[in-house]
Amino acid sequence: MTFPTTRIEAVMASVRARLNDRSWLPGARLPSVRAQAKTLQVSVSTVVEAYERLAAEGLIQARPGSGFYAAGPVAPLALAEMGPPRDRQVDPLWLARQSLDPEAGVLKPGSGWLPSDWMYVEGIRRGLRSAARASSTALADYASPLGLPPLRQLLSRRLAGHAVEAVPEQIMLTESGSHAVDLICRFLLEPGDTVLIDDPCYFNFLALLKAHRVQVVGVPYTPNGPDVEAFAAALQAHAPRLYITNSGIHNPTGATLSPATAHRLLSLADSSDLIIVEDDLFADFEHTPAPRLAAFDGLSRVIQVGSFSKTLSASVRCGYIAARRDWIYGLADLKIATSFGGGRLAADILHAALTDSGYRRHLENVRVRLTVARELTLARLAPLGITPWTVPQAGMLLWCRLPEGLDAAAIARRCLAEGVMLAPGNAFSPSLRAAGFLRFNAAQAQDARVFEVLAKAMTASHADAA
Amino acid sequence: MTFPTTRIEAVMASVRARLNDRSWLPGARLPSVRAQAKTLQVSVSTVVEAYERLAAEGLIQARPGSGFYAAGPVAPLALAEMGPPRDRQVDPLWLARQSLDPEAGVLKPGSGWLPSDWMYVEGIRRGLRSAARASSTALADYASPLGLPPLRQLLSRRLAGHAVEAVPEQIMLTESGSHAVDLICRFLLEPGDTVLIDDPCYFNFLALLKAHRVQVVGVPYTPNGPDVEAFAAALQAHAPRLYITNSGIHNPTGATLSPATAHRLLSLADSSDLIIVEDDLFADFEHTPAPRLAAFDGLSRVIQVGSFSKTLSASVRCGYIAARRDWIYGLADLKIATSFGGGRLAADILHAALTDSGYRRHLENVRVRLTVARELTLARLAPLGITPWTVPQAGMLLWCRLPEGLDAAAIARRCLAEGVMLAPGNAFSPSLRAAGFLRFNAAQAQDARVFEVLAKAMTASHADAA
Repeated sequence: MTFPTTRIEAVMASVRARLNDRSWLPGARLPSVRAQAKTLQVSVSTVVEAYERLAAEGLIQARPGSGFYAAGPVAPLALAEMGPPRDRQVDPLWLARQSLDPEAGVLKPGSGWLPSDWMYVEGIRRGLRSAARASSTALADYASPLGLPPLRQLLSRRLAGHAVEAVPEQIMLTESGSHAVDLICRFLLEPGDTVLIDDPCYFNFLALLKAHRVQVVGVPYTPNGPDVEAFAAALQAHAPRLYITNSGIHNPTGATLSPATAHRLLSLADSSDLIIVEDDLFADFEHTPAPRLAAFDGLSRVIQVGSFSKTLSASVRCGYIAARRDWIYGLADLKIATSFGGGRLAADILHAALTDSGYRRHLENVRVRLTVARELTLARLAPLGITPWTVPQAGMLLWCRLPEGLDAAAIARRCLAEGVMLAPGNAFSPSLRAAGFLRFNAAQAQDARVFEVLAKAMTASHADAA
Repeated sequence: MTFPTTRIEAVMASVRARLNDRSWLPGARLPSVRAQAKTLQVSVSTVVEAYERLAAEGLIQARPGSGFYAAGPVAPLALAEMGPPRDRQVDPLWLARQSLDPEAGVLKPGSGWLPSDWMYVEGIRRGLRSAARASSTALADYASPLGLPPLRQLLSRRLAGHAVEAVPEQIMLTESGSHAVDLICRFLLEPGDTVLIDDPCYFNFLALLKAHRVQVVGVPYTPNGPDVEAFAAALQAHAPRLYITNSGIHNPTGATLSPATAHRLLSLADSSDLIIVEDDLFADFEHTPAPRLAAFDGLSRVIQVGSFSKTLSASVRCGYIAARRDWIYGLADLKIATSFGGGRLAADILHAALTDSGYRRHLENVRVRLTVARELTLARLAPLGITPWTVPQAGMLLWCRLPEGLDAAAIARRCLAEGVMLAPGNAFSPSLRAAGFLRFNAAQAQDARVFEVLAKAMTASHADAA
């Protein structure tokens, strides 16, 4: 018996396409042979033959008496495998896992936070001791839907200090800053929407947006903020729904937004109904506050998020969202649906630490230490020919260019083998155009071994290239 | 000038359809007139006229020089407005907000947790005092990707006590039990997938699944677990990807799964590649452990989640997922992408409280108090003609039938006005077939005023009906 080969292949191609685009997930039952024949207007025997061949290829499985199923166990959302392939070393999730891995003895100038002994641990200890004497309700009950009122009042006053007007009813506490951005994405985005981000941007935005199955468009970042012409062109070309950025100190570059750029961005956003999320997590490191988009905009189309994980503690998790009141209501519904009430305890401890007079002194101290650490790090990088893209005014981050011809991922791989974890530029770059950059954390680059290992890795890479 | 009316209407219908199915979200730019004309194979003037009429209807907006946009401000994911309309009083989110609302003086026999003074607050206090002396790392750093190793080891041993074999590498800590279910849904589900749930089920599963935009199919619950015939029929009819249920004590009915039902469910799941999530959050209330699906299945297609929010504290948030190792790896990626590292502190405090010798004694005490509270509550409901659907062997929940002709939502509305918050049956029922049921929390029904207010509301409702 012969078969009409072209038709069989057409059926096979159609099934492959549905498997590839995940219309049929592994484990899903395929349409019956009869139904498929009708849909594709071919004979039943053509479909049977096509299914048999696909089964022979292992793409689908026959189950006697039950039909054909997409093969494999289940195929869950494998973030690591979604999107264009990247070097494992420049995959944002790889960088996150390396940063979070508590392996002893590894130096982490590639991580994005302060060493624990630079954090306000004394305030947390006091907060814990005071929590130990709190009411049963504080220690055992769920928080109210928006979160602890005194902390929201405090945040309202802090925001006012940056000229952002938000009453406590416009502020909702979240489990973390990332949780805040995640909730907003769930609230505003549909799979397939387009989101603008800075190129380079905070690497975990890339992983987060991948989990939301949205298209990401990068806008080149300049030392004054995103390139406004490129931003305008991206709005025209992609009609994005959201732009996610950092306010204050930008991650990974350490740059800050100029008022002129802020104004032009908001005008563009107004004329194209773009919503902006500004993640203000480094606010407490600034000597002089940079302009906040939320201040210019009055929380109309700008949503501000933040957390205390960079200055107080990443162990006591708590973030916030400040936004229009109607959005906060909807975001609270979504928070309840997906994580029920938050806990009260973290908010109680942070509130105690934030209102403690020691926090301000602690911050002043950290800011001075960071200034020294940045200068020292740049001074140690200079002899290696590694230069800052911009010289940040505040914070821990330094975005640095390697000498011509060196690949940051290759250097990072070599250094990791020697116990030094670096952050290669392309982990931050949606366009993968930052292969010649490394992000350094000045506070985590105090050990001379960082620079010894780095120098050795550079020499070895140069030798390989020669 | 006249227009080909049918074509104009066809264009309008096409636009309406895209607006309705949220392909074009409010604020999105519509295809240009020219592009639309080409796509729909009509003239430019037909599209112009159709757009103008839709603009006149307010569905879209013309913006001079820029084109047409889907109307409205932005249209975020409004959970409260998705799905078929429900009484506000039987909407799962309404019930969640009422439960979480900390309004003073309101009695909450409709809530799903213990009064705070029944919780293990002393253990939490001790945990806080011990945390206050912990290392800087414990107090300031992120947790490792899977979460605090000693707590995962402890969970591994606890699971073994229920015959569930899971090494610590198969266990990941989450922010809460709800967060655990949410991560699993994100990992395994696509919008439009079908999920089986019990009818009735924990009300927040309904809100959570709504947020995932999946189809929900309810399977009638019996005093031994889900109705196996209906379960088999639902598998045939809907090819669901996931079944979400409670193990141990079922919410809202207080029933437990029989071994025979567990076995039959798993056989059915095996033959149709169904994944099962069992939420084990009431485990510590059981006198005699009911069978766990995860124990029968060996964590192959069953995922177990749980938390400590019902026995230890809902203020110190922490949940867990126990699953196949490859799934845990993917789930950890998703956790990192959407909430970065977890915090360590909550896990540290809970670990201290759980390993404290007082916890076991506390639980024994709570179990006895709950037995007394259930009996007392049923004895007080009996004279009102309110009878248990099943008499639970453990836990705080009582799923009770009202006398014929009374509507639980109407009763709940009246009682709320008098400061007593009840949980009407349809908030738990995907099919809305539980209008004659209320869920009582025996531990929160200790105040005689609950029954006075309830009796008055029933009398008034009877009078209205007469």
